[in-house]
Amino acid sequence: MANNLLAGKKGVIFGALDEQSIAWKVAERCHEEGAKVVLTNAPVAMRFGKINELGEKIGAEIIPADATSMEDLDNLFTKSQEIMGGKLDFVLHSIGMSLNVRKGKEYTDLNHEWMLKTFDISAISFHKVMQTLYNMDAMNDWGSILALTYIAAQRVFPDYNEMAESKALLESFARSFGYHFGEKNKVRVNTISQSPTWTTAGSGVKGFKEFFDYADKMSPLGNADAAACADYCVSLFSDHTRMVTMQNLFHDGGFSNMGMSPAILDM
Amino acid sequence: MANNLLAGKKGVIFGALDEQSIAWKVAERCHEEGAKVVLTNAPVAMRFGKINELGEKIGAEIIPADATSMEDLDNLFTKSQEIMGGKLDFVLHSIGMSLNVRKGKEYTDLNHEWMLKTFDISAISFHKVMQTLYNMDAMNDWGSILALTYIAAQRVFPDYNEMAESKALLESFARSFGYHFGEKNKVRVNTISQSPTWTTAGSGVKGFKEFFDYADKMSPLGNADAAACADYCVSLFSDHTRMVTMQNLFHDGGFSNMGMSPAILDM
Amino acid sequence: MANNLLAGKKGVIFGALDEQSIAWKVAERCHEEGAKVVLTNAPVAMRFGKINELGEKIGAEIIPADATSMEDLDNLFTKSQEIMGGKLDFVLHSIGMSLNVRKGKEYTDLNHEWMLKTFDISAISFHKVMQTLYNMDAMNDWGSILALTYIAAQRVFPDYNEMAESKALLESFARSFGYHFGEKNKVRVNTISQSPTWTTAGSGVKGFKEFFDYADKMSPLGNADAAACADYCVSLFSDHTRMVTMQNLFHDGGFSNMGMSPAILDM
Amino acid sequence: MANNLLAGKKGVIFGALDEQSIAWKVAERCHEEGAKVVLTNAPVAMRFGKINELGEKIGAEIIPADATSMEDLDNLFTKSQEIMGGKLDFVLHSIGMSLNVRKGKEYTDLNHEWMLKTFDISAISFHKVMQTLYNMDAMNDWGSILALTYIAAQRVFPDYNEMAESKALLESFARSFGYHFGEKNKVRVNTISQSPTWTTAGSGVKGFKEFFDYADKMSPLGNADAAACADYCVSLFSDHTRMVTMQNLFHDGGFSNMGMSPAILDM
Repeated sequence: MANNLLAGKKGVIFGALDEQSIAWKVAERCHEEGAKVVLTNAPVAMRFGKINELGEKIGAEIIPADATSMEDLDNLFTKSQEIMGGKLDFVLHSIGMSLNVRKGKEYTDLNHEWMLKTFDISAISFHKVMQTLYNMDAMNDWGSILALTYIAAQRVFPDYNEMAESKALLESFARSFGYHFGEKNKVRVNTISQSPTWTTAGSGVKGFKEFFDYADKMSPLGNADAAACADYCVSLFSDHTRMVTMQNLFHDGGFSNMGMSPAILDM
Repeated sequence: MANNLLAGKKGVIFGALDEQSIAWKVAERCHEEGAKVVLTNAPVAMRFGKINELGEKIGAEIIPADATSMEDLDNLFTKSQEIMGGKLDFVLHSIGMSLNVRKGKEYTDLNHEWMLKTFDISAISFHKVMQTLYNMDAMNDWGSILALTYIAAQRVFPDYNEMAESKALLESFARSFGYHFGEKNKVRVNTISQSPTWTTAGSGVKGFKEFFDYADKMSPLGNADAAACADYCVSLFSDHTRMVTMQNLFHDGGFSNMGMSPAILDM
Repeated sequence: MANNLLAGKKGVIFGALDEQSIAWKVAERCHEEGAKVVLTNAPVAMRFGKINELGEKIGAEIIPADATSMEDLDNLFTKSQEIMGGKLDFVLHSIGMSLNVRKGKEYTDLNHEWMLKTFDISAISFHKVMQTLYNMDAMNDWGSILALTYIAAQRVFPDYNEMAESKALLESFARSFGYHFGEKNKVRVNTISQSPTWTTAGSGVKGFKEFFDYADKMSPLGNADAAACADYCVSLFSDHTRMVTMQNLFHDGGFSNMGMSPAILDM
Repeated sequence: MANNLLAGKKGVIFGALDEQSIAWKVAERCHEEGAKVVLTNAPVAMRFGKINELGEKIGAEIIPADATSMEDLDNLFTKSQEIMGGKLDFVLHSIGMSLNVRKGKEYTDLNHEWMLKTFDISAISFHKVMQTLYNMDAMNDWGSILALTYIAAQRVFPDYNEMAESKALLESFARSFGYHFGEKNKVRVNTISQSPTWTTAGSGVKGFKEFFDYADKMSPLGNADAAACADYCVSLFSDHTRMVTMQNLFHDGGFSNMGMSPAILDM
C-alpha cells in the first residue's frame, strides 16, 4: 500500500530504537508515502538500538537529541530544516520511560525525584518540542504533530505505575498546545492512544504478556499492532485529516469502548 | 488530491441531497479515490434534491430507499451488491430529521409520537442498516461503516432540541454494533462528530448562523467544512484506519476540547 | 444513620417493586431522613410486587401510573401535590424494561417495533415525567430529579442489548432537561450510574451472575449495593449537592475508571 | 443546616488561607457537622493568611507543613493522629500555585524548571500526601480523600496556562491511588471539579473576572460558590457516598455539559 499520501512533506520522527518500535514503522511508512524524514533519538538510546540501519534504509539523516534539552531540540530542528530544505509538516513524539518502573518501585512507594525525571522525559519533552517548534516558527501551515499515548491516562492499569500520570500529562500538553498552534498557523496536535504493542520497551513491563493477551481478547478487532499504527499515523500526517486537532484518538481495535467481553468471561 | 486510496472498494452512501450535502462531497471524493459507489436517499428527499445529477457525474446508480424500512434496505443492499459485483467495503449514514423541530415545538413541550418518528429516521435507521448488512453478510472483511453525528450528543445546545437524543442514540448504536461486526468479520463502525456545516438541512435550524459563527470562533482551526469532512471520511474508509472502531471521532477544528476561547471573550 | 437530611422535603419515587428494588431502599431511606413520599409504579408491576407493604411501612400513599402515559403522569403529579400539600422537592425515576431482551432476541436481530416500546418505557418516560413536572410547575426551586442508569451507555456489554441505547437516551434527556429546569427554577437533574445490582429485574438478565462477579472483582471497593445507592440518592436529594446538575454520576466502587485489575488477571 | 453528618469523624484540611478559601469553608462546615479537624498550610502561606483565626473559631490545631516535603507530611499526619486520638476519616487537598503564571510567562514560552516546581506543589504533593497516609496506615476503613480541581484538565482555557497540566496530573493521581487505597482498606479518593471561585488565589489570575462572568452565564444554575463546595465536600466525606471512588465530580452548576447557552449568544 503506497498512495503517495505524503508527497513533498517533511517530518521529524523521535523514538525509533529498533524494528519493533512503532516509530521505526512510522518512518518506513512515511518514506513509502513520499515524505522526507529526519530521525532522532537520545544519544544513549542510539547506542543500544539500530537507528543507523533504518537511516540507511530510508535515506534519512539522524540527529541525536536529548528531548529534555532545549539546546538539543533547538539544534535538531534547525538542522532538520537545513537538511530537508524548509519547514516541517509533521513530527512524531514516541518517547517514554519510567525510572520508578525500572527500579521496581511500587506506585505506593515512589521516589518523587525519579517521578519528576520520568515526567520530564515522557511528557514535558513534548511541551519542549512544541515550544521549540513554535518559537522557531518551524512548522508549515496545516502541519501535524502527533504523540503516542496509552489509555492508562483515563483508566487504571496498576502495573503501568507512574506512566499513567505521564500519559495524562502528555495528552494535556497536546490539547493546550493544539490551541496555540492552531491559532498561530493551523497546525494540529493530537495523540494516538495505542493498543499494548510488542516493542522492546513495552514488552519489558511487568505482566506485559498477560495484559497483552487480555487486551487482545477484549478488543473486537484484536490489538492494533505497530504496522497498523504506522498506517494510522500516515493518515494523520496527510491532508485528509486537517481539521482534527486537540484529540486523543484511540487506535486499539475497540478496547476503549468495551465494558466487558464474553470472550473474557469465557476464560 | 487523489491518491487512489479506495481503489477497488465498493460503497453505499446515504443522504446526498444537493451539492451542499456532506454525503454529496463524500461520494465525489470516494469516486476520485477509485471507489465504486451506489447512492441512496429517501424517495421524498430525491424529489427535492438533485441526486440524479450527482449520479451522472460520478457514474453511480441510485436506489431509492426509506432507511426506516427493512424491506427497502434489503432491496438496497441486494441490488447494490449486484450492481457493483460483490460485497461492500464501506457505508455512510448521513440521515437526520426532527419532526418536533420542524413543527416548532419546544424541548419542554414535545410531541412524543413525533419523537419516536424522529428517532426512527435519525438513529434507529442506522441500526436497521447494520442489522440488514450483518444478516445478509454483505460487508467484506475489514470494511468500514460511518455515521455523521454532532457534539450535542455529549453537551447541551438547546436549539438542537430532540436531535441531541437522536445523536446520543446513533453513537450508542455505533459502539454496540461495532462490537458485533468486529467479532463477526473485522468490520469497523465509527461516528464522525462534525462541526456545524452549511448544508441545506443544517442551515434551516433556528439560530444556525449565530451558532455557526460562535463555533467557528471557538475552534482554533475554525469550523470544518463539508469538503474536509469528505476527506476525513475517505481516510476512515481506507486501509489506513483498520483498527479504529467503536469511536466517536471529533472533526471540528478543536471545538470539542475548548473550554473557553479568548476570541469569544473579546466579542 | 439518620441525619434528618430531607426534613420537610416531598418526593415521588417510581419503580419500587419489592424489597430488592433500589427504589424500595430509596423510599425507606428518604422516609428515615424526614421526607414525605408518594410511591408509584405501573399497574401491571404493582400486581406482581409488594408496593403496598412498603407504603404501609413508611406511611406513603401509592398512585398507580403508566410512566409512558402523559395522562397518568398528569394525574400522578396533581394528586401527589394534593396529598403532600405542596410542590415536590425530589423525584426518582427507576424504570427499565427491554422487550427484545425478554423475548430473547439477539442485538443483531432486533424487532424494531419492540425497540421503540423499550425506549418509550425505559427512557422517554423520563422526558415525559420531566415535561409534565415542568409544565405543571410542580417542582420547588432547588429541587432534585434523579434517574438510575448503567455504564452500558458508554461502553459495550453485549448482553445488555438494546438497554445500552435506552440508557444512552436516558442520560441525554437528563442533560437536556437539566438545562431547561435549571434555567426555569434551579432544579437539578442527574443520573446515577449504578453497579450491577441484585434486584428482581437485574438478576433475570442472561449471564448476570457471572457479570456481577466480574464487576465485583474489577471494582476496588466491590459492587455498590442497593442500600448504598439509596444513601447516595439521599445525598443527591439533600441540600448538600445543590450545584451538581446535568451529570452522570458513577456509583460503582470504582469500576468505571478501572482499565484492568490484577484481581481479574489472577482468575 | 447542620445534620451531624460527620459526627465522630477526624480529618486534615490543607489550604485554608483566609475566609474566601474553599478550604476555610470546608473546615467550618466539617466542624458544624460534628467532625474534629486539624488544619495545615505551607509556612509561607500561613504568614500571609489568617489560619489562626480559623483555628480558634473551630477549635482546631494548626500544623504547618510544606506539602512537597515528605518529612513535613510525616510529621503532620503523625501529630494529627495524636491530637485527634486515632486514624483519619477524611483529608482535603486544596493546593495550587503556578510559578510560570506568577512570573507572567506565556504557555508557549514556559520555563520548564518552574513547571516542575508547579507540578510538585500543585499535583505531586497529592501523591506525597496519599503515599504518606498509605504507608503510615493513617486512614480508617471507608475513609474519604478529596482534592479540588478544575475543568481545564479536560478542556482548554488558555489563561489557565500550565495549571491545566497540573490538574490533569492531580486527577490522574486520584484515580491511580484510588485503586490502591480501595484495595488496601476501602478508602475512596475523588476530585471535585469546581466552578471558578472568588478566592484570593483564583481572583488573581489574568482575566478572571471576565471568565467568571462567562462561566456564570453558561451554567444553568450559575457558578457554584465556596459555600456550596463546602456542602458538597461534607457529603463526600460522609457515609452517604461510600461507594463513589476514582471519580472526577463536576460541581459547577452544569457548566461542564453545556455546549452553548443562548445566554451567551445574547450577549
